[in-house]
Amino acid sequence: MSAVAYGRLIGVGTGPGDPDLLTVKAIRALESADVLAYFAKEGRRGNGRAVVDGLLKPGMPELPLYYPVTTEIDKNEDGYKSQITDFYDASAAAVASHLEAGRTVAILSEGDPLFYGSYMHLHVRLASRFAAEVIPGITAMSGCWSMAGLPIVQGDDVLSVLPGTMPEAELVRRLGDTEAAVIMKVGRNLPKIRRALAAAGKLGQAVYVERGTMANAAMVPLAEKADDEAPYFSLVLVAGWKDRP
Amino acid sequence: MSAVAYGRLIGVGTGPGDPDLLTVKAIRALESADVLAYFAKEGRRGNGRAVVDGLLKPGMPELPLYYPVTTEIDKNEDGYKSQITDFYDASAAAVASHLEAGRTVAILSEGDPLFYGSYMHLHVRLASRFAAEVIPGITAMSGCWSMAGLPIVQGDDVLSVLPGTMPEAELVRRLGDTEAAVIMKVGRNLPKIRRALAAAGKLGQAVYVERGTMANAAMVPLAEKADDEAPYFSLVLVAGWKDRP
Repeated sequence: MSAVAYGRLIGVGTGPGDPDLLTVKAIRALESADVLAYFAKEGRRGNGRAVVDGLLKPGMPELPLYYPVTTEIDKNEDGYKSQITDFYDASAAAVASHLEAGRTVAILSEGDPLFYGSYMHLHVRLASRFAAEVIPGITAMSGCWSMAGLPIVQGDDVLSVLPGTMPEAELVRRLGDTEAAVIMKVGRNLPKIRRALAAAGKLGQAVYVERGTMANAAMVPLAEKADDEAPYFSLVLVAGWKDRP
Repeated sequence: MSAVAYGRLIGVGTGPGDPDLLTVKAIRALESADVLAYFAKEGRRGNGRAVVDGLLKPGMPELPLYYPVTTEIDKNEDGYKSQITDFYDASAAAVASHLEAGRTVAILSEGDPLFYGSYMHLHVRLASRFAAEVIPGITAMSGCWSMAGLPIVQGDDVLSVLPGTMPEAELVRRLGDTEAAVIMKVGRNLPKIRRALAAAGKLGQAVYVERGTMANAAMVPLAEKADDEAPYFSLVLVAGWKDRP
């Protein structure tokens, strides 16, 4: 039986990329944590880690959790699923060993931890055993519509957040069934997204934003974007507020 | 012709209620602004103003913009529409007079300014004439699902943000057509929302959160909530992530 009190698990939303969009609460959590953990591609630090670079205590122990697979593998293959599940189990075990030793672990999560964030995989494995706190972050979509100065929803508007991975016909249907839309996971799906917006009669309203709030951010009305190149950190926004004055 | 350079318009998201959920950028904007403006009910300060209370420079000029009408009037009446439009026009003119005099005006907006925020009414009237910047804030929904520790969306989930004001049949249909949902504007619509969730087979998944992140916050599975009392600052969350381990 251990005499050491368990440490706390803190999911820290790091926001869309601009370090000034961290919350006061997130900064305090980084100051109080004993260990800093984050998911990243092998050999990279990841965007969340870059955002907090100027805020860390010297010598703070870091626990990078490197994904074993890339997005090149088909996510519907059984091999992918078992590999990624094993990885999240092992990551949770690595974090748990620090918590059991009484160390508070801050897990960085780009955007907002519980909104499509990888932190969720640790939360569901650990929050029943350890004290857990989630610090919300500015989502990428908020960062993008703020940068664009685009009023996204007002009054009784419906907002639909849609993954660009869905079949084209379903995308057309959903775009026609909402006042406002945010299309995530653009990347290689951009040609399909463009066709779906045109079919729904909303291509003229669509705004393309890449790397919103980051130093190399860019935005353009989608109809004016000449190519179909889109990085992972890109979104398409369709604003509502039909009666806008 | 004036020799004075115009001031800047800054929409400042104040987040869901906890002052520690302000961003660094929002705090800096409050420090740099010459005038602080905010919408409120007559005689009240409003929640956004309360959130920044400990952060203001002594003697900072304030411009409260008091709504002329209450929610008791039918919003579909012509009288309401013209009264509220006149009010936003007059509010924009009051802010413009400061901007023209070279004063930077920070407009507080609860949650995120361009996500159902009243700031939007000033933005659309002023951003074409004056330099405008929008600082995103943590939305009420992010504050609520973080407080609840509820993973809301993962992977290819669709998230639908639905106003509780919509007709019951439409609410049922939309709840059946999405992985995750956030129902806003709960208040007096709670009995209808409860029926719609039951009809869509999702009442058991629904979590009710009131005043998320505020000092008097509360949450409960909606099915266990004994009464139908709900304040304005309440939400119902239905989490997605069907394959959650």
